[in-house]
Amino acid sequence: MLAYTKQGLRDVAKPRPEAGEALVRVRAAGICNTDIEIIRGYMSFEGTLGHEFVGVVEDCADASWIGARVAGEINLSCHQCELCQRGYERHCPTRRVLGILNKDGAFAEYVTLPIRNLHRVPDALSDRAACFIEPIAACFEILEQVVITPHERIAVLGDGKLGTLAALILSSHGTPPVLVGKHPAKLARAQHMGIRSALPRELAPKSYDIVVEATGSPSGMELATSLVRPRGTIVLKSTYHGELKVQAAPWVIDELTIVGSRCGPFAPALTKLGIGQLLPDGLIDAVFPLHEAARAMEHAAAPGVLKVLLQMP
Amino acid sequence: MLAYTKQGLRDVAKPRPEAGEALVRVRAAGICNTDIEIIRGYMSFEGTLGHEFVGVVEDCADASWIGARVAGEINLSCHQCELCQRGYERHCPTRRVLGILNKDGAFAEYVTLPIRNLHRVPDALSDRAACFIEPIAACFEILEQVVITPHERIAVLGDGKLGTLAALILSSHGTPPVLVGKHPAKLARAQHMGIRSALPRELAPKSYDIVVEATGSPSGMELATSLVRPRGTIVLKSTYHGELKVQAAPWVIDELTIVGSRCGPFAPALTKLGIGQLLPDGLIDAVFPLHEAARAMEHAAAPGVLKVLLQMP
Repeated sequence: MLAYTKQGLRDVAKPRPEAGEALVRVRAAGICNTDIEIIRGYMSFEGTLGHEFVGVVEDCADASWIGARVAGEINLSCHQCELCQRGYERHCPTRRVLGILNKDGAFAEYVTLPIRNLHRVPDALSDRAACFIEPIAACFEILEQVVITPHERIAVLGDGKLGTLAALILSSHGTPPVLVGKHPAKLARAQHMGIRSALPRELAPKSYDIVVEATGSPSGMELATSLVRPRGTIVLKSTYHGELKVQAAPWVIDELTIVGSRCGPFAPALTKLGIGQLLPDGLIDAVFPLHEAARAMEHAAAPGVLKVLLQMP
Repeated sequence: MLAYTKQGLRDVAKPRPEAGEALVRVRAAGICNTDIEIIRGYMSFEGTLGHEFVGVVEDCADASWIGARVAGEINLSCHQCELCQRGYERHCPTRRVLGILNKDGAFAEYVTLPIRNLHRVPDALSDRAACFIEPIAACFEILEQVVITPHERIAVLGDGKLGTLAALILSSHGTPPVLVGKHPAKLARAQHMGIRSALPRELAPKSYDIVVEATGSPSGMELATSLVRPRGTIVLKSTYHGELKVQAAPWVIDELTIVGSRCGPFAPALTKLGIGQLLPDGLIDAVFPLHEAARAMEHAAAPGVLKVLLQMP
């Protein structure tokens, strides 16, 4: 079968499900910035890329799943260790991660995943929308970590796919943030989706209760530090590769709280998508067939591009 | 009167209390690392140093205070702005800070402070012990910011005065931490005070629920990041001057919470000291008369030295 790796598109053996796993025929998959980073060397991952997907179960020990359209949680945990027992399965120290760490991903015709990682996708949801379940779940993680009440003033930094999605989710939670970016075109697109947006220089310093940092750049961290009020919270939603250089004195003087935030819960993402409260279709920039994955990755990495999807044969 | 500034000991005018202020004759004061940093240029502060003190009220519009032995909160806030109104007086944007920002401090024969900043010191408390109220309050701030239950595994990094004091306060709270340092002599002294201590290499990585960073060095931040468990909390208790360079990827991947922590509440510090649950006398390294303040500062800055006090004439 066709599969997309760091080395490009390759013909690889169809994966065989391990005990407890299902074989899923992939229908569509989304390209995330993490995929682009992996191509550049992040995590030294060598297998099939892709961790945002929707597909149909073709084979599975539990026959009730066969034929089901599914999305899948990306962390494969041991469910035995102390962290798993405490409910932190996504932090299991021996975890594998779909398309990121020791587990082939979904930029392929087939993928395997533990049955316990699967979630049925409601019929009302298109394949394209279903590709957003994983990144939407990652945004819901913010709500699991930080108490956000309706009167909170929130700024989301970064007008890319992650920032825009986070702004959508916070809006649907009842606390519309201001989306902060440097690209007037992207900000206009966000405005069109009902998201208030602004350029960095339009914001008053030290005036936000919560700042979500989704730019992934050290300058984003500096901006977040300057915008958050004393005793406020910065949510780090994008990973920093390499060394971060910051003036950390304000973190102590203003007693800031900085919360790292990675993967999140699928259930609320599915519920919100299923009842049509989120319309991430507007975030889709382009759809490519799997055999043009290399071109799709290139397009996804270009400035100003939001979500790029792969459509499987 | 005698007062100690960045330029050394000087003869300055006795301060005159503003409206709402009391004139306090200082009896003793403690040297904090912040004082040493100010000498090196921190905050560009040019006035009289010193913010940990005990003294006796000599003059005050409210006669009930005259003759009282007092300690004083160090932040002079407007009590009008939004942050003050929300209860964050210690973060008032127009605040002055005793011996640190636009307000002459207590390394002098006299100091003035707003009456509302004063706390009566119980008779049972020696002047020396009373000098610890401010730094103990700063450690109690940790308990205001982070929920700490008795089963939490805590490491305090830094075997200096701040780290040792934080370890004492956490122990008295019912959650004895391990104090982590590099100086066997200081660790032995901590052991003698009933504080469990260890060298960094003796600790298992990713095994602490809470790590209190009190070394003030970037390497302390690296160590904290390596010791805290996924979803755990790092409390930044010492200020970083200049640029901090860190690998921030684990903050996001392990979803850490980082909490900056500065000044704290005087009331619990006074209560704990008053009922004799804390015995910081063991932390006193030396006592110098005010006229030897320069020598005292030099001694306080030497490696391995804990608290140094100044005794006023």
